[in-house]
Amino acid sequence: MLLIILQRVVNDMGRLLNEINKANDIKAIPKKEWDNLAAEIRDFLVDKVSKTGGHLSSGLGVVELTMALHLYLDLPKDKLIWDVGHQAYTHKLLTGRKKDFDTLRQFEGMSGFPKRRESECDSFDTGHSSTSISVANGMCRARELSGGDEKIVCVIGDGAMSGGMAYEALNNIADLKSNLIVVLNDNKMSISKNVGGLANYLSKIRTNTHYTGFKNGMEKFFGKIPGGIRLINGLKRFKDSVKSLFVPGMFFEDIGLTYVGPIDGHDVSSMLRALKYAGRMKKAVLLHVITEKGRGYKFSEENPSKYHGIGPFNKENGEALGEKKLTYTDCFSEELIRLAENNDKIVAITAAMPDGTGLSAFEKVYPDRFFDVGIAEEHAVTFAAGMAVSGYKPVVAIYSTFLQRAYDQIIHDVCLNSLPVVFAIDRAGIVGNDGETHQGIFDLSYLCHIPNMVVMAPRDGAELGKMMEFAMKLNKPSAIRYPKASLPASFKSSYDEISLGKSEVLSVGKRVCMLTIGNTLEVASKVTKLLEKDNINPGIINLRFASPLDEQAIIEAANSYELVISIEENVSTGGIGERISKLYVENVYNYGKAFKFMPYSLKDSFIEQGSQDKLRDVNGLNPFDIYNDIKRELGI
Amino acid sequence: MLLIILQRVVNDMGRLLNEINKANDIKAIPKKEWDNLAAEIRDFLVDKVSKTGGHLSSGLGVVELTMALHLYLDLPKDKLIWDVGHQAYTHKLLTGRKKDFDTLRQFEGMSGFPKRRESECDSFDTGHSSTSISVANGMCRARELSGGDEKIVCVIGDGAMSGGMAYEALNNIADLKSNLIVVLNDNKMSISKNVGGLANYLSKIRTNTHYTGFKNGMEKFFGKIPGGIRLINGLKRFKDSVKSLFVPGMFFEDIGLTYVGPIDGHDVSSMLRALKYAGRMKKAVLLHVITEKGRGYKFSEENPSKYHGIGPFNKENGEALGEKKLTYTDCFSEELIRLAENNDKIVAITAAMPDGTGLSAFEKVYPDRFFDVGIAEEHAVTFAAGMAVSGYKPVVAIYSTFLQRAYDQIIHDVCLNSLPVVFAIDRAGIVGNDGETHQGIFDLSYLCHIPNMVVMAPRDGAELGKMMEFAMKLNKPSAIRYPKASLPASFKSSYDEISLGKSEVLSVGKRVCMLTIGNTLEVASKVTKLLEKDNINPGIINLRFASPLDEQAIIEAANSYELVISIEENVSTGGIGERISKLYVENVYNYGKAFKFMPYSLKDSFIEQGSQDKLRDVNGLNPFDIYNDIKRELGI
Repeated sequence: MLLIILQRVVNDMGRLLNEINKANDIKAIPKKEWDNLAAEIRDFLVDKVSKTGGHLSSGLGVVELTMALHLYLDLPKDKLIWDVGHQAYTHKLLTGRKKDFDTLRQFEGMSGFPKRRESECDSFDTGHSSTSISVANGMCRARELSGGDEKIVCVIGDGAMSGGMAYEALNNIADLKSNLIVVLNDNKMSISKNVGGLANYLSKIRTNTHYTGFKNGMEKFFGKIPGGIRLINGLKRFKDSVKSLFVPGMFFEDIGLTYVGPIDGHDVSSMLRALKYAGRMKKAVLLHVITEKGRGYKFSEENPSKYHGIGPFNKENGEALGEKKLTYTDCFSEELIRLAENNDKIVAITAAMPDGTGLSAFEKVYPDRFFDVGIAEEHAVTFAAGMAVSGYKPVVAIYSTFLQRAYDQIIHDVCLNSLPVVFAIDRAGIVGNDGETHQGIFDLSYLCHIPNMVVMAPRDGAELGKMMEFAMKLNKPSAIRYPKASLPASFKSSYDEISLGKSEVLSVGKRVCMLTIGNTLEVASKVTKLLEKDNINPGIINLRFASPLDEQAIIEAANSYELVISIEENVSTGGIGERISKLYVENVYNYGKAFKFMPYSLKDSFIEQGSQDKLRDVNGLNPFDIYNDIKRELGI
Repeated sequence: MLLIILQRVVNDMGRLLNEINKANDIKAIPKKEWDNLAAEIRDFLVDKVSKTGGHLSSGLGVVELTMALHLYLDLPKDKLIWDVGHQAYTHKLLTGRKKDFDTLRQFEGMSGFPKRRESECDSFDTGHSSTSISVANGMCRARELSGGDEKIVCVIGDGAMSGGMAYEALNNIADLKSNLIVVLNDNKMSISKNVGGLANYLSKIRTNTHYTGFKNGMEKFFGKIPGGIRLINGLKRFKDSVKSLFVPGMFFEDIGLTYVGPIDGHDVSSMLRALKYAGRMKKAVLLHVITEKGRGYKFSEENPSKYHGIGPFNKENGEALGEKKLTYTDCFSEELIRLAENNDKIVAITAAMPDGTGLSAFEKVYPDRFFDVGIAEEHAVTFAAGMAVSGYKPVVAIYSTFLQRAYDQIIHDVCLNSLPVVFAIDRAGIVGNDGETHQGIFDLSYLCHIPNMVVMAPRDGAELGKMMEFAMKLNKPSAIRYPKASLPASFKSSYDEISLGKSEVLSVGKRVCMLTIGNTLEVASKVTKLLEKDNINPGIINLRFASPLDEQAIIEAANSYELVISIEENVSTGGIGERISKLYVENVYNYGKAFKFMPYSLKDSFIEQGSQDKLRDVNGLNPFDIYNDIKRELGI
């Protein structure tokens, strides 16, 4: 009996969602049910994400906004671009992908980001921040040329607005002669709390909502005027008056947009009205919507950062499932605090990810030496160069995939000036469920060719600490890449001292030698275990440095073994396998010596989502395949 | 007698400059002589640049500004950062480098950009745009931590302000608690005319100089008020009133800076007063200075773009010396117009360089299909992706070194979405006199590892045209890199059809085969001529595609020749030499075949200024060295 009642409640809970099986179905839901639908969506999202893990807080914040957009737009004819894209779960739900949520972020399952291959309603694949206005502008100019009448809307968070390319785009949409709605989804934070002048400005708009500030300011202003004209006695005083006479959105209006807002982002009707109003203008309109990140689920409301991106959790008490293991990030975090204790020149810089990079702990201990620049990787790197040229030792902690944004700044500001900036590159290699926009599979290729740059990768937590210590003493740029992973057991508990460009022999073996870099020692360990059955004891050299390579040790390996293999968690092109090949051609093969070299790496392709091990297995780093190749080559 | 008088005039002209032999010497020049000094500086710059070539217009615009800065600052203790840096000639003159102007931009001579190795007064090496505020912010935070009292000033042009990282930096200096002066050098243009919302905004400030607009606006505003309070009848009307009540600089004040200006940038006294005023504030101040690009030299005043960067010219009539030859840029320009005639989906995008990239001609013919986004490479690329996903064929023309800025956007927005954007990469390889900040020596390394990206390089103008035609038909991203060079005579006047990943055999030879990519065919031609004396007829394969490589042809070469060499104008790491090495290891050497492969490329280092040929010679691409290596390897 209880079961039947429960079943009914559950059925009833999905009542409205059951009527939504494709784009535009939401339009048949009566207005009086909108709040109920929003509640159903939230329950659905919390339930599903608690099982698969995923991005929760951002998605919960935009439930009503997404509903309003779907009521306003005619998808897929109209175009809707989600900046970053991890907030698009409701959009997926409203476009017929409800059934796919069980495979969210799983191998061959539904992506946690918009994907054109999943649905015609996903008009652009995103994952990195601050790109949506540029894309939308491109679509608008295309529409102007082709004479189309599709609506174009992009949704960008206030966090993403700190990224420079968003501003480049705002600067460029100012002269649009057709409609573009840029929805500024202002939830008062990026992944963590927001920083910078624009954030303060938006906060001023929010506290002046309903124009109360405007009224008070006006009264104060007019109170000061005896005759009306006598007021004009100096720019300073006037400017201050205008400041107190605060008008929402003038910043955006100054740059040529029309500002509409602020609007309550949890009131579907208001937003729908605002969208219709904004949509009538033949120009770019910034629609400022205020939302609450994590809304509607007690635990994410209280701590939206924790539920920004999260693994499976118990939805009743909000607690993460699975045991918490120490990660490379934890190790970096602790070690940096330790090093900073004895070196007051060490400062730490993050681009809006104090939690993800492990720097929040540093901030607590050394608040004056910690800098969160917002989602602004380019500035982060050149800012670090400015501190380094002034005698400081900046540690810039940015994920591998996001550091791509600052490639030119690494070349032009850090390496050309040969400044001792330390790049702590977390999430290098396969990251797993976030999929192709987030894999850190290019950093060896984009860093190793930059002159003056030293590139390292540690085999475990202890070596990460030693490399950080080494980097602090180095008077030139360096990068340490490490994976999203819990710390492995140490392969060997003693460590050679770190010395520039020197590798470490982990085991001397016979016939075959494996050259590893960073966490690919774990692949080599697995291969070693397999080879033991065949009585083969392989040599293992931990390269430590991807740049400069330990040329001497690598060449010597060719003289000591029949077969050398290299293993790197990076795409093949631009990786160490190619560089070692060239080294062998020039120093071994060209001298007529016959021996075999086999480089292993990830495939040269974008790599989709899935568990890290699964992705390594199917993209070139499967220990069994390597083992079988070695057996074949050795003729055993 | 006439000679003596002339001599006296000349001496007199250098009278004040002769008293300036090191930093701060300007402070001894009496105020009444400032205008004369400015005139002497301009004469000196026009005279020197007319002989060596260089950046003229920007430098002429900031003569008085630089004087004011040198009067205000105490160099080298204080820090002065020049954004981009090509406007720093007067700065060099005032810091004791007058004698070095004869070697300006020459091999081993004085750089055309700030260089820390040249002078302690150059506090940061620059060359790319929009970096200075980030650097200055880093210096300010360092000063706050170390308790220093040095002044910090950066100078950024209004053009550079369209770059996103400048905005990221503005957003981050908002909460500075110590002084930073950001001089906005507003000359109403970047290299060409300025674009975008901010440019319009600045123009509004300029036309409201002396607050005339402010007064009129006030009168209009108050004229509308019957009772004072009744005015408050809606945001829209009020906002419009505030707009007409224009207050200079509120845009910058909204983001948290203090705005001072606009100031006449050719009035040293005014600027000095403004600097002193701004320098007293314990925060970031934006000092808006209006200058005239090209000021004081008739020809550059009339056409500042032409004299932005120029080769040697006749200073009497302003005409360029040396004959004008057709370049790759000219060829690209013509071919694009031709292709666009039959394909109305082709659109062209530049980041503030319509002249340099050759797109101004396209703009004249197809103004609606041309987009100048300002100095905003990131936006340019993602904007192109937005047009491509809407069915257009965008051609993004950006120099090799500046495209580095958009590395992440190429990966994340173009290649991950696999969109048919065509990158026309001018100034690839050695560019010459601009030196290390501008060499295009990394593009093969930063492009070839990106999945889905096709990378080509043409051997001459005709092949450039064919590759463009090919790229237009390709339904995926592609890049064509070509050098800053006049078009070479065709090595062979017939051309195989361009086919994806297929090379072209230019000559079948014996014993040695050269694999060339793009303009390195010219190196191979020189080597061929030298080898002819030894009766060696080398094979030459024009690879055409750096990605994907023609693996079959490359492997076949190993079977047909004793020695294969590859020649690329790119750094070694990440270049094709390494990839070919890996190909040979896996397909030739591992099968026990003995043959020799020698990859040639530029050295793995930043490459300084000089003539292109000189730089190739000393950085790895000297035909005589290659010839001698070949002789040695072949035993002749």
